[in-house]
Amino acid sequence: MMRLSKYVGFGKGRAQNHDVAGDSPVTPVSGAPNGAIPDGAMSNGTSSHGPPKTQTAADVPESSVDVLMAAAWMAHCGIKTRIVDKRNAKIFSGQADGLQCRSLEIFDSLGFADRAWKEANHMLEAQPFLLRLYDTSDSITQNPGSDGVIRRSDRIPDTIVGLSRFQQIVLHQGRIERFFLDNIKKHSNDTIRVERGVLPTSLTIDESKVDTNEGYPVTVELRHLTEEESTPKQQVSASKVPDGLFRSNLAQEDDEADLIDKNESRAGKSEIFHAKYVLGCDGARSWTRRQLGFQLEGDSTDHIWGVMDIIPITDFPDIRMRCTIHSADNGSLMVIPREHKLVRLYIQLKEVTPDASGRADRSKITPDLIFGAAKKIMEPYNLEYQYCDWWTAYQIGQRMSTNFSSHNRVFLAGDAVHTHSPKAGQGMNISMQDTFNLGWKVALVARGIAKRDILPTYESERGQVARELIQFDQRFSRLFTGRPAKDVMDAEGMSMEDFKDAFMKSHLFTSGLSVNYAASNLIVKQDSDGSLAKGLPVGMRFKSVKVLNQADGRPWHIQERLKADGRFRLVLFAGDILSPPQQGRVHKFCSELDGPGSFLRRATPSNAPIDSVIEVLTIHSSKRTETELLRDFPEILHPFDEHNGWDYNKVFVDDESYHEGFGDAYVNYGVDKERGCVVAVRPDQYVAWVGELEDFGDLQKYFEGCLELGGSGAKLNDH
Amino acid sequence: MMRLSKYVGFGKGRAQNHDVAGDSPVTPVSGAPNGAIPDGAMSNGTSSHGPPKTQTAADVPESSVDVLMAAAWMAHCGIKTRIVDKRNAKIFSGQADGLQCRSLEIFDSLGFADRAWKEANHMLEAQPFLLRLYDTSDSITQNPGSDGVIRRSDRIPDTIVGLSRFQQIVLHQGRIERFFLDNIKKHSNDTIRVERGVLPTSLTIDESKVDTNEGYPVTVELRHLTEEESTPKQQVSASKVPDGLFRSNLAQEDDEADLIDKNESRAGKSEIFHAKYVLGCDGARSWTRRQLGFQLEGDSTDHIWGVMDIIPITDFPDIRMRCTIHSADNGSLMVIPREHKLVRLYIQLKEVTPDASGRADRSKITPDLIFGAAKKIMEPYNLEYQYCDWWTAYQIGQRMSTNFSSHNRVFLAGDAVHTHSPKAGQGMNISMQDTFNLGWKVALVARGIAKRDILPTYESERGQVARELIQFDQRFSRLFTGRPAKDVMDAEGMSMEDFKDAFMKSHLFTSGLSVNYAASNLIVKQDSDGSLAKGLPVGMRFKSVKVLNQADGRPWHIQERLKADGRFRLVLFAGDILSPPQQGRVHKFCSELDGPGSFLRRATPSNAPIDSVIEVLTIHSSKRTETELLRDFPEILHPFDEHNGWDYNKVFVDDESYHEGFGDAYVNYGVDKERGCVVAVRPDQYVAWVGELEDFGDLQKYFEGCLELGGSGAKLNDH
Repeated sequence: MMRLSKYVGFGKGRAQNHDVAGDSPVTPVSGAPNGAIPDGAMSNGTSSHGPPKTQTAADVPESSVDVLMAAAWMAHCGIKTRIVDKRNAKIFSGQADGLQCRSLEIFDSLGFADRAWKEANHMLEAQPFLLRLYDTSDSITQNPGSDGVIRRSDRIPDTIVGLSRFQQIVLHQGRIERFFLDNIKKHSNDTIRVERGVLPTSLTIDESKVDTNEGYPVTVELRHLTEEESTPKQQVSASKVPDGLFRSNLAQEDDEADLIDKNESRAGKSEIFHAKYVLGCDGARSWTRRQLGFQLEGDSTDHIWGVMDIIPITDFPDIRMRCTIHSADNGSLMVIPREHKLVRLYIQLKEVTPDASGRADRSKITPDLIFGAAKKIMEPYNLEYQYCDWWTAYQIGQRMSTNFSSHNRVFLAGDAVHTHSPKAGQGMNISMQDTFNLGWKVALVARGIAKRDILPTYESERGQVARELIQFDQRFSRLFTGRPAKDVMDAEGMSMEDFKDAFMKSHLFTSGLSVNYAASNLIVKQDSDGSLAKGLPVGMRFKSVKVLNQADGRPWHIQERLKADGRFRLVLFAGDILSPPQQGRVHKFCSELDGPGSFLRRATPSNAPIDSVIEVLTIHSSKRTETELLRDFPEILHPFDEHNGWDYNKVFVDDESYHEGFGDAYVNYGVDKERGCVVAVRPDQYVAWVGELEDFGDLQKYFEGCLELGGSGAKLNDH
Repeated sequence: MMRLSKYVGFGKGRAQNHDVAGDSPVTPVSGAPNGAIPDGAMSNGTSSHGPPKTQTAADVPESSVDVLMAAAWMAHCGIKTRIVDKRNAKIFSGQADGLQCRSLEIFDSLGFADRAWKEANHMLEAQPFLLRLYDTSDSITQNPGSDGVIRRSDRIPDTIVGLSRFQQIVLHQGRIERFFLDNIKKHSNDTIRVERGVLPTSLTIDESKVDTNEGYPVTVELRHLTEEESTPKQQVSASKVPDGLFRSNLAQEDDEADLIDKNESRAGKSEIFHAKYVLGCDGARSWTRRQLGFQLEGDSTDHIWGVMDIIPITDFPDIRMRCTIHSADNGSLMVIPREHKLVRLYIQLKEVTPDASGRADRSKITPDLIFGAAKKIMEPYNLEYQYCDWWTAYQIGQRMSTNFSSHNRVFLAGDAVHTHSPKAGQGMNISMQDTFNLGWKVALVARGIAKRDILPTYESERGQVARELIQFDQRFSRLFTGRPAKDVMDAEGMSMEDFKDAFMKSHLFTSGLSVNYAASNLIVKQDSDGSLAKGLPVGMRFKSVKVLNQADGRPWHIQERLKADGRFRLVLFAGDILSPPQQGRVHKFCSELDGPGSFLRRATPSNAPIDSVIEVLTIHSSKRTETELLRDFPEILHPFDEHNGWDYNKVFVDDESYHEGFGDAYVNYGVDKERGCVVAVRPDQYVAWVGELEDFGDLQKYFEGCLELGGSGAKLNDH
């Protein structure tokens, strides 16, 4: 048995020890699996025994959105979960703020992209990192520094046109947490809550149990903190503005050790519980990671950056555009326009440097110091403010953990496994995408729907993304800290053309849409040349175009029908259903699908609707008005239910809408309009398999490779 | 003094009598006017004296959304308001359900169109009333009744393409009430709540006070009902499904009299309060209207219709489309697909007829009777259901009140002043639009911002709409109750062509977008030939197209900037601001606007921001990237504030966006791209005045005609 410690756990099961009062009862969400019995239990001070309740817990608000993303999956899939956070309050200002396209698509799959879209500031004109380059050295006119005026070097759309139905937006992390909390509350019937002021103090894994689906191999000890212990200490500054230094990588690790030490004298306030799975989202200084013995490998640079969220009063003309200002001698500054008149400034602090140990003295860093640096860079424009919402500082470093998981029972995500500079707006996004990748896998395994063999794909898939991120950030941070070239012959400086070129290339990466997961038991690259669906590469997310509901003609972005409810999906591109040969192919495929030995039948629990584990969606290419649902499509494509009749929300058509144009799905996906194809889609919207209608056998093999086929799984929530 | 009675009151002021416990304190919303002192008062059993607190109250959930619309205005404008409802619960199912384009535009101006849009069923293929005609008489093939199969006669988009950025949707009234209640709570800081189980029992108007702005001429007596009294009695039926008969016009008026009679023995539970204004939204049998002595003039027909909300199980192919089925002998049926698999059926009941008094016996009407009629009409298709959500029945009648207001102090709206059949989906929409017209006028007058002279425009403007509605419904209901023509020579029947033609013509009317208010002190038809802005006819609502924010390039539907916050708006079409002659014209206009005697300065209270009463928005036609906010536009167009700097949300450009196309505003509005024009817009988004940049004097006169200019008004909330 391996001794570890810290934060968290999720899975399915129940506790036997009920002697802690004051905790809100945990009740199963609707569709909870067999064996999940509601109780208010949490073991107190002593070991519990027998099958315990299992939960998710996690920590460090710095990365709290990633653990909330995992909790959202658990809520949507009906898995009992516990979340703990050593801090005593959610975030109300500051922190991460950029939401990339893929994150918005994910929010939409969970059901709250619209809230973010409505409240956020939308950044339209910029590269993913940069709107316009301002260059006081005047490299464009080959007249360096002649007048000192900042010059625009270019204007670029902030998001590549056509990449996604969303564009990058900016909204502070406190609101994003709010959306998650509301969503988790709704989908878990208020059974999953964040327990604040709770510090995990030990964690052990029973290796004899890690490979079976029955046991509860992870044991976690938790301590309930006092109000004082769980309140972040703020640096006292003249401005009284909340700062984020306690969460910055400039903070000290011993804060945490202190809290744990205190635990020794408070045994009565500790409790032990057992979990199937544990997730640590505890930031760059992850205690979980250190207990697991994993290293963060990589380097820190000497560059210290300050961050301020202010309402600027300035004559700088592009203050509401994302832009980067490279000054000749005073360093660089990034402008990120925010919601509610706020603007975030990232400011290079040339006057603060790390000491011999590589750490900067955070006591030297004040809002005045940071703002003074910003004013210099901004010259000759004026920059003042009366309101500052939040500020912090950080040191650039790119590091990555040697491992992402221990025994596929304890997982790490977000800053705990990869750290980098925040300026690319990648931290929160990639961290959330880590746990969006992990959550459904753990949920489906816990449910007995998917095989445990799928869990290693978390590390293989997200490790690959983390490596790309580190490389990207190393290249990218150098661009920001270099000074601009004085002229084309200036070897030490950097030309604006190089800068722009590097930014252009990074567009796709930062959007989160270039991720292409490698082959595994969840990704089968059979259609590797894309001959059947060039627009739907296996391993990438299912791109969204608009199709119409056959029954009522309503246009839907197809991603709106790929909700994060834990279900796999089969998208049947039925082709021209009115052509008799194609009709024959579709009917043959459907009869195989409807057969008693098909993966669809075998994956579905005996008393559950046929679309509980795998939902079949159809997109055909005949004219909508010439086609009729009940006449032209086999019933397996629009299943009948004695209470509700036929399902009118499964069959779509690639046809022109009255008010919202023509999605042209077959053309966009590169699918033959006559013959169609079949696409398997994972619960996280990634394309898993593409084949012909005749490739039913291969499709069956795909699902045999990742799902427990036998009808023994529990029914998922049907959202 | 005129003795009246019943429901309601709004205005500004305060109560002096504080002796009722148990009522939640009424606190002023932010930006409350001078003199609005928070207190929890409501006088109890005795007359109060002195300046009392004034409020809005209203009744009858049948029309509850109209009173909520008025309350929303009061919340957005910071007016203390009280709402009373004799029923003890909000609506949870059934009732009105269709939301027309204009209602959605209004919801958007209040801030919750997105919630309705997300939850509703979208009807795409239909006429405003009808999607497809089914004709068992087979008139198309001139072979009447040969096979009995229902035939499609046509397919039509449900909403005229390009009419609005919204299309008609369907969502039950309970959800719409929820959106209103949430919105009112948010914008009134939870001070405006619906008091349920409260029945107004008398209402008097002190005529000596009606013409001044200071007094509280309306006195209302209220009685708090018991739980039993305020619970609607349901008809006992085998199905136990909630029915709406108690709200139907088939219900008896003496229910209400009963409640008032009981009042006599419960004096201790009554209270008296004083109001500046009272609004009665108490339905077709409006007690307020009867007390005011106004008549409902018009007729009832013999036709009785049943309504059922069911999840149908049917092989009828178009059950998810809006359609109308005319059977040869069994009457007509309308299909309205709803959210959550529900479908509403309107079913002509040929077996129930009114008695000698003109009333049908409602005890005969059961779900079985209604559904039996539906099944007959639907033949030869099968129609069954296992779940019924709600049902009711009504008698068609078109009537209109002789007056809409008494002394412009007590107002009536919705079904209290116009009744008609519900099938056109007009009831809820036109009722809400009544109070959307009234609310801001009362709020601005109560605030001292607008002149009392604007109040008669409520009756002139909405009376005109009501007359059009009655005429429309008379023509329209006849279409539904006629039997289809057997062939072209059949004089008694109605040909499908006539039917379709009538429906096509009604498109625009039912959308709510054909309303064109006549000239008044709020509507000045100076640009009557539309030579300056053909696309913005004076008297009609300001059509929305997309423009870009000059400062950040973000596309906005211009209506998104015309929020329902009680402010008038001046839209300055600045033309080509980079052309020197045009620049001169814009600067001259702006210097007049900025002058000390201008309506803008004089309308603004002394300590309030310059955009508190009238907001100036600019749309120019130069290239965005060649224009700069601070350099090219006079400061009055983007006012400076010492805390927040310049305002970046006032100047827009008619230019192409990166991701959302080109609104082409100048072309769509018919405005000259070089010279522009000036448009005054009312708080309810109606175009009030159009003129040249040189017509400042006329513009000044417009505002002198409707606003109290003198800087004495209070500051409105700035949303």
